[in-house]
Amino acid sequence: MRPSRRIEEYGIRIGRMPKGPRNTIADVPGVSVGHCTLADGPVQTGVTAVIPAPGNLFREKVMAACHVINGFGKSCGIVQIEEMGTLETPILLTNTFGVGATSEALVRSMLAANPDIGRETGTVNPAVFECNDGFLNDIRALPVREEHVLKAIASAGSDFEEGAVGAGRGMSCYQLKGGIGSASRIVEYGDSSFTLGALVLSNFGQMEDLTVDGRKIGATIFGIAPPEDEQGSIIALLATDAPLTERQLKRVARRASVGITRTGAFIGNGSGEIALAFTTANRVFHDETSPVRQIGMFNENEINLLFRAAVEATEEAVLNSMVRAEAVTGRDGHTRRSLAEFAELFAFK
Amino acid sequence: MRPSRRIEEYGIRIGRMPKGPRNTIADVPGVSVGHCTLADGPVQTGVTAVIPAPGNLFREKVMAACHVINGFGKSCGIVQIEEMGTLETPILLTNTFGVGATSEALVRSMLAANPDIGRETGTVNPAVFECNDGFLNDIRALPVREEHVLKAIASAGSDFEEGAVGAGRGMSCYQLKGGIGSASRIVEYGDSSFTLGALVLSNFGQMEDLTVDGRKIGATIFGIAPPEDEQGSIIALLATDAPLTERQLKRVARRASVGITRTGAFIGNGSGEIALAFTTANRVFHDETSPVRQIGMFNENEINLLFRAAVEATEEAVLNSMVRAEAVTGRDGHTRRSLAEFAELFAFK
Amino acid sequence: MRPSRRIEEYGIRIGRMPKGPRNTIADVPGVSVGHCTLADGPVQTGVTAVIPAPGNLFREKVMAACHVINGFGKSCGIVQIEEMGTLETPILLTNTFGVGATSEALVRSMLAANPDIGRETGTVNPAVFECNDGFLNDIRALPVREEHVLKAIASAGSDFEEGAVGAGRGMSCYQLKGGIGSASRIVEYGDSSFTLGALVLSNFGQMEDLTVDGRKIGATIFGIAPPEDEQGSIIALLATDAPLTERQLKRVARRASVGITRTGAFIGNGSGEIALAFTTANRVFHDETSPVRQIGMFNENEINLLFRAAVEATEEAVLNSMVRAEAVTGRDGHTRRSLAEFAELFAFK
Amino acid sequence: MRPSRRIEEYGIRIGRMPKGPRNTIADVPGVSVGHCTLADGPVQTGVTAVIPAPGNLFREKVMAACHVINGFGKSCGIVQIEEMGTLETPILLTNTFGVGATSEALVRSMLAANPDIGRETGTVNPAVFECNDGFLNDIRALPVREEHVLKAIASAGSDFEEGAVGAGRGMSCYQLKGGIGSASRIVEYGDSSFTLGALVLSNFGQMEDLTVDGRKIGATIFGIAPPEDEQGSIIALLATDAPLTERQLKRVARRASVGITRTGAFIGNGSGEIALAFTTANRVFHDETSPVRQIGMFNENEINLLFRAAVEATEEAVLNSMVRAEAVTGRDGHTRRSLAEFAELFAFK
Repeated sequence: MRPSRRIEEYGIRIGRMPKGPRNTIADVPGVSVGHCTLADGPVQTGVTAVIPAPGNLFREKVMAACHVINGFGKSCGIVQIEEMGTLETPILLTNTFGVGATSEALVRSMLAANPDIGRETGTVNPAVFECNDGFLNDIRALPVREEHVLKAIASAGSDFEEGAVGAGRGMSCYQLKGGIGSASRIVEYGDSSFTLGALVLSNFGQMEDLTVDGRKIGATIFGIAPPEDEQGSIIALLATDAPLTERQLKRVARRASVGITRTGAFIGNGSGEIALAFTTANRVFHDETSPVRQIGMFNENEINLLFRAAVEATEEAVLNSMVRAEAVTGRDGHTRRSLAEFAELFAFK
Repeated sequence: MRPSRRIEEYGIRIGRMPKGPRNTIADVPGVSVGHCTLADGPVQTGVTAVIPAPGNLFREKVMAACHVINGFGKSCGIVQIEEMGTLETPILLTNTFGVGATSEALVRSMLAANPDIGRETGTVNPAVFECNDGFLNDIRALPVREEHVLKAIASAGSDFEEGAVGAGRGMSCYQLKGGIGSASRIVEYGDSSFTLGALVLSNFGQMEDLTVDGRKIGATIFGIAPPEDEQGSIIALLATDAPLTERQLKRVARRASVGITRTGAFIGNGSGEIALAFTTANRVFHDETSPVRQIGMFNENEINLLFRAAVEATEEAVLNSMVRAEAVTGRDGHTRRSLAEFAELFAFK
Repeated sequence: MRPSRRIEEYGIRIGRMPKGPRNTIADVPGVSVGHCTLADGPVQTGVTAVIPAPGNLFREKVMAACHVINGFGKSCGIVQIEEMGTLETPILLTNTFGVGATSEALVRSMLAANPDIGRETGTVNPAVFECNDGFLNDIRALPVREEHVLKAIASAGSDFEEGAVGAGRGMSCYQLKGGIGSASRIVEYGDSSFTLGALVLSNFGQMEDLTVDGRKIGATIFGIAPPEDEQGSIIALLATDAPLTERQLKRVARRASVGITRTGAFIGNGSGEIALAFTTANRVFHDETSPVRQIGMFNENEINLLFRAAVEATEEAVLNSMVRAEAVTGRDGHTRRSLAEFAELFAFK
Repeated sequence: MRPSRRIEEYGIRIGRMPKGPRNTIADVPGVSVGHCTLADGPVQTGVTAVIPAPGNLFREKVMAACHVINGFGKSCGIVQIEEMGTLETPILLTNTFGVGATSEALVRSMLAANPDIGRETGTVNPAVFECNDGFLNDIRALPVREEHVLKAIASAGSDFEEGAVGAGRGMSCYQLKGGIGSASRIVEYGDSSFTLGALVLSNFGQMEDLTVDGRKIGATIFGIAPPEDEQGSIIALLATDAPLTERQLKRVARRASVGITRTGAFIGNGSGEIALAFTTANRVFHDETSPVRQIGMFNENEINLLFRAAVEATEEAVLNSMVRAEAVTGRDGHTRRSLAEFAELFAFK
C-alpha cells in the first residue's frame, strides 16, 4: 500500500511561498508525467516520463538549461541542452543501465513522429536521466525495454503517482525508500502570476544526515540501518511558465541543490546530482524562418522569487518522494523502509 | 579500393615535430583500435573502438578529460569523465542513433568482465561518442547492434584502417568523404621522450573552406558539390603516455580545436565537436585502499610541447581521414567523393 | 567589545567530525591570517590577508581551484587559478571597490620580492576577493589604500580575530553583523590524519531565513529589521594539507555551498558567492626544470571525508563570523546588531 | 610613422563576407573607441577604451558573454558578465599590472555618473582586460594612472587608430609588433542586415608560426628573431547589432579563437586568450520594473552567418593590428619590428 499522505499533510510547511493547486510539477500548464513500473521479485525499477508540453516537441522545442551539481552520473542529452538551450524530447528517467535502451526507444518514438529526422533535417537529442537503483533492483538484468518507455510516455497526465513508482521504484533516499516526488510554488509578481514546479528522482543520502524541515530525524533513527557510503544520486527537474532566458534557467537550476541539501545531504562523492530547468513560455521552432524572434526575459531584479520557489519546491519534492513511498524489498532480500513509518517524529498535527 | 597513401605520402608535412613509428594513436604504448564496418546499400555506418590500455579498464582506469568545442552532439559519458577525471571503458565511436545500442552493448560487456558491478560496487560509465552520418547512411534504420560493438572491440589492435571504416564508414568531411584518421607526434624533453597520438572521426565542414596545409583546395573544387549548411561534427581523441593531471589533460584536449580549424572549418552551429584526452601514465585503481597515491604532473613550463603535438596530430589525423577514404555511395544514391581524387592540387612529390 | 564566545561555546555542535586545536583555518600547518581594520564613522571596512604558506609563494605555488557558486561578484584572479591550478600570492579580502587598490598593492609587494617578474619571467596573478559592505561602510569613499594591504599581510599569524575585523568590518549577514569566521575539521584516515580549515567573509542572507544548526532563529527575530532584498555575498576559503589534484580541489570547493546554505540562505541573485580551495601538500615550482613531478592524489573512494569536513567547517565558520561580531554602526547611522545578542535562542548550555 | 595600409590594402582578402564601411568595430552603430598612449623610453604602454553604446551603460546595460580560450590572464569582470549576462561599463584594455589602477579609475568614473551606486543600489562591475607588454614596456614601473584611463574614455569616437597605440603600444605579436586591430563584417539575412565588428589587443605567437591568409610568412622570416617561448595573450572583443541571447553571444565569442588560430598560433600555455561578445540590440535596464521584457533571439538555424563573421573579422583584426603597427623600441633596447616591413612576402597588388 502506497502511503497516501504527502509531507504537507503531516503538518510540515516547507518555506513560505504559496503552492499550486496540485502542488506538483503538473501545475505548470501543459506539463504531464507518466510512469511504467516494473516490480517483480529482484526486478524493482521502471521508467518515468516528464513531458514538458503537449504537441510535437521536436518542432516546437522548450527552452532549457542544465546544472551538474555532482557529475558522478551517466545521464544523456546534457551537452546539447547546454549548447542549444533547448529540450526537444520528453524527459525520460530510469535506472543507470536502462539509459541505452531508453535512449534508443525515445529516438524511435521521435523518428516515428518526425519523418524528416535523419533525412531532410538533422538528428534528435534524447534526454535521458538516471539514478542507480542497484541496491533494491537487479540492475545487471537490464530489464528496461522499449515497451516500458513507450508505456511511460503514453500514460502521461496531470495526475500522477509519487514514491516507489516508475523510475523511482527501486531508488533509496537516506537509506529509506526514495523515488518520485513533486511540489510546486506560485510566484506572484505585480499583476502576473507564474508557477514553478519540481519533480525529483531521489536516490541519495546517508540516514544519519536526514533532516525534515530542520528536524534531525536521521540522527534519531539511523541505528535501524548499517552505515553505507554515500553512493546515491538525484535528478531534479524544474518546470516553469515564467519566461526565462537560457542563462536565467541555468541560474534557477542551480538552486535545486539548495533544496536538496536542506534535507541533510552534503553532495557526496558518488552522487550523480543533476538539475534541469525548462520554461514553457519561450518556445524555439525547429523550422524557424524569421531572422529574429522575441522571447521573454524575467526581470532579474526580482528573480529571487523564482530562486526561492525552486528551493522550496525541490526540498518538498524530495520529502514527498520519501513519505509517499512504501517499503520495498528487492534483489537478495534487500529492503528499504518508508519514511512514513517514522512520521511521529516529525508530524505535529 | 581504399586509397593507400596517407597525407604525408603526398609530400604534405604538417607542423614541425617528429612523428611516431606508425604515425597513429597506436604509437602510444597500449592503445589499440578496432572497427566493425556496415556497408550494404543504404546502410553505410559502423562502430570503432579505441581501447586506451590493455587489461581491465574498470579496475585500472586511465586519467582523462573532455573539452566540448561545440555541444551540438549526443555523445555519452562526458559528465562523469569531467567529474571523476577517469575513463573506465573502451571509447566507442558510432553514428548518432547508434549511441543507445552501443552504450547498452558496452555496459553488457563491462558487466560480463566485472561481476561486482551493480552488486558490491557501483555502476560503470560507458564512453560513447558519435557523429551524424545521415547523408550517406540510412540512420533511421538503426542498424548498429550489440554484435557490431563486440566485434569492433574484439578486433582492436595496433594496426588499423583509416578512412571509410568503422564509425567512419558513412561520415562526410568538407562535403567529401571523411571518417577515421590518425597521426602521432613525439615530444622529446630532456632525457625523456613522450608520445601523443590523435584519432578523429571526421564529419564536418563546407567544401569551400577546405584547406590543406595552407592551400585553399576547397575554394578551387567547391563547384563539384552544391553548397550545404555546416551540419557536421567531429570527435577528436588524444592519447599520450606523458603524465598529466586532469587539468592538464583538459588543456591538451582544448588544443584539438586548433588542429581541426586549421583544415578550414569555423566550428559551425550544427557541428558537435568534442575532444577527449587521456594519459596512460596515470592510472586510478577502482579498489584503491591507500589514502594517497602519487601521480605524475608534467612540467607546465614546457607543456607547449604537448599542445603543439596535439595541434599537429589532430590536423594530420583529419587530413588522413580524408585522403584514406574511398568514395562511398549510400542511401538515396548520395555520394561523397574522396579527397584523394584531387591530390594533384596539393601533392608536390 | 567583541563577543568572546564562538558558536561551539554556546553548545552548538556543527556536524560530527573532530575539530583542530584552534578550530580555525590556521590549524592547517603554515596557513596564517592577518587583518587591517578601518573603523572611523562612516568608514567601516578593511583588508584581510590569508597566507597559504610561508616563504615565497610566487616561486613555490600552492595547488588551488575555485568554484563560483553565484557570480554576481567582482573578485579577481579566478580565471588564472582555474587555468593553471595554482595560487601564487596571498589571498586578499576587501570591499568591492577596494579590489583595484588591493590588487595593485599586492602586485607591488610581489614585485618587491621577485625582481624577475616582468623582466626575465612573466607576470603575477593577484588573488583578491570581495564583498559589498556598502550598507555600513561608505564604500564610495574608496578608503582602502596600499598601506592597509601591507599591514594586513604583515600582521598575519596563526592567531587572528574573527567577526567585525579586517575585510569583515562592514559586512552584514542575515541582516545582522557578519564578517570573518573560521573553523576546522580533522580527517582521520587509516594511519594518516589531515586537517581542513575554512575561513569565510560573510555578507549574505535575509534575516527571516537564518538557521542555527536547524533552529529557525531568523523566523523568530526577523521583526527587528525591515525586509531587505538578498544583495549579499560570501567568500569561502578552504585550506587543507591533504594532497588533492586540481579536480579534487574543485570538488571540495563546491561543497562550501552546502555549508553556507545550511545556515538558511538560498544563494540569492545579488549574492556573489565564491569558494576557493587550496592544498599545501602539492606545491608547484615556478622555476621547475624536471619534466615530471610527482604530486599526491587523495583516494577518491574516501573523498567524502573531505567533503563532509568542508561542509561542517564552512557552516561553523559562517556562524562564528556572526557570533563573534559586535554590533557596528556606520554610514548614515546604519546599524547591524550582533547574533550574540540573541544567543538565548540557540544556546543550551 | 605608423604604417598607413591595412591588410586589405595589401590585396589580402580574409574570408568571403562583405565588410562594413569603416571595416572596424565602430561599424556597429554606437560603438566607439579611444586610446591613451604612453611612449617614453622604457615606458611603452597605454589604455584603450571600447564603449559599447552611448549613454549611461550602468542604467542601460548591454547583453554580453565571455569565453576564456586560455585562462593564463588577469582580466577582471568576467565572473559577473558570465553570471548576469550584461556589461555595465566601458571595456578597458591595458597592460597586466595596470589592471588595478584602471579598475579603480573606472569605478570612480562610474561613481561620478551614478550617485546611487554604493548607496541606494549595489556596486558596479568594471570590465578591465589585459595583456603583458613586459618585453617592450617597463611593466614594473606601473605607469598607468587614473588620468590615462579617463583620457582614453574621453577620446572615444568612431574613428580610431590601430597598431602601436593605447593598450597596444607595447604589445608583441608573432615576435613582431602587435597591438590594436579591428575589422567588421556585414551579415545579410532576408531583408535584414546586421553588422559584427571585432577589435583585438594582440600579444601572442611565435614568429615561426605566423601565417597570413594561408601564407607561412613566419617560416620564411623567423631567422630575424631568436626563438621565444609562447608567453603572449590576446583579448578579442566582438560587437554586433544582431539580437542574441547570452547563450548565443557565448557561442559567437567562442569563434574568435578560430580567427586567432588562423594566423598560425596554437593557443600556447602562457597565452591569456579571452573573448568577449556583446550585442547592442538587447539592453537590460538597471531600474527595470516590469516583470518581463521581450528580447530578440537570432534564428539559430542561420547563426553560422554570425559565426563566420566572427571568425573572419577576428582574423583580419589580428592582421591589421600587425601591419598597422610601427616598429617600437622600449625598455632595455628591446625592439619589435613591423609586419609591414615584410609586406612584399604577402602583398600581391
